[in-house]
Amino acid sequence: MGTPQSKSPVVLTVCTTCRPAGSDPEAIRPGLTLARALAEADLPEGVTVRGVECLSACTRSCTLHLSGGPERWSYVYGDLDPASHLDEILAGAAAYAATEDGFVPWRERPVVFRKQSIARIPPVEMPGLDLSADPAAKD
Amino acid sequence: MGTPQSKSPVVLTVCTTCRPAGSDPEAIRPGLTLARALAEADLPEGVTVRGVECLSACTRSCTLHLSGGPERWSYVYGDLDPASHLDEILAGAAAYAATEDGFVPWRERPVVFRKQSIARIPPVEMPGLDLSADPAAKD
Repeated sequence: MGTPQSKSPVVLTVCTTCRPAGSDPEAIRPGLTLARALAEADLPEGVTVRGVECLSACTRSCTLHLSGGPERWSYVYGDLDPASHLDEILAGAAAYAATEDGFVPWRERPVVFRKQSIARIPPVEMPGLDLSADPAAKD
Repeated sequence: MGTPQSKSPVVLTVCTTCRPAGSDPEAIRPGLTLARALAEADLPEGVTVRGVECLSACTRSCTLHLSGGPERWSYVYGDLDPASHLDEILAGAAAYAATEDGFVPWRERPVVFRKQSIARIPPVEMPGLDLSADPAAKD
């Protein structure tokens, strides 16, 4: 957090253990294939890949979490296909890494990030809404 | 991060805007009701509530994100009912806040946290797996 230009590292955290229903349990998991493909790809500047054992979103395999420090929104994406979504994930990560707050305008997101979001999480630093029960403050 | 005893604050980030399918769009959203109920409850030590406008998990209303700094796992929970789940959410947040890493043993989690997890996210500080494609390192 030194100069205004410095940003937290961006991390693609990929679940390597979940598998689509009905797939061979002995086969290499698609998430591991995705994580390896990302690790071997020409990653955008400031982006790293981390393989983890379970994101607990097992019905939406493959899944990943895109994050970039307490100042940025983070996102969980699912139903990812290592064979067809690699380029979109890399483009989406590059757009994300170029932001200060992790918020990429909708039209600039790859389709896979627009359509396959499981959840988004606000920056740690973002203040919350007024939760006063005063009707005047409602919504 | 001063002494070993100090932990990051724990935050219950509650989506206040999503609503169950078919509900009245003009009614107070259940997530806002949940956020207000939590804010008015006897919160466990070190736990705060933050209402936000969208966690983008709209089909799983009500939803919340349980987090506690870069050293802890964080969790997204869904299908929450402000009328029946308040005590369980508070108990789960207390158990979580008592941990260093956010990992509460399965049997000690309230049922709603066991059954209604949408995703879990590893601590920022947790190293990733070896993604080497060397077959000897496989799984």
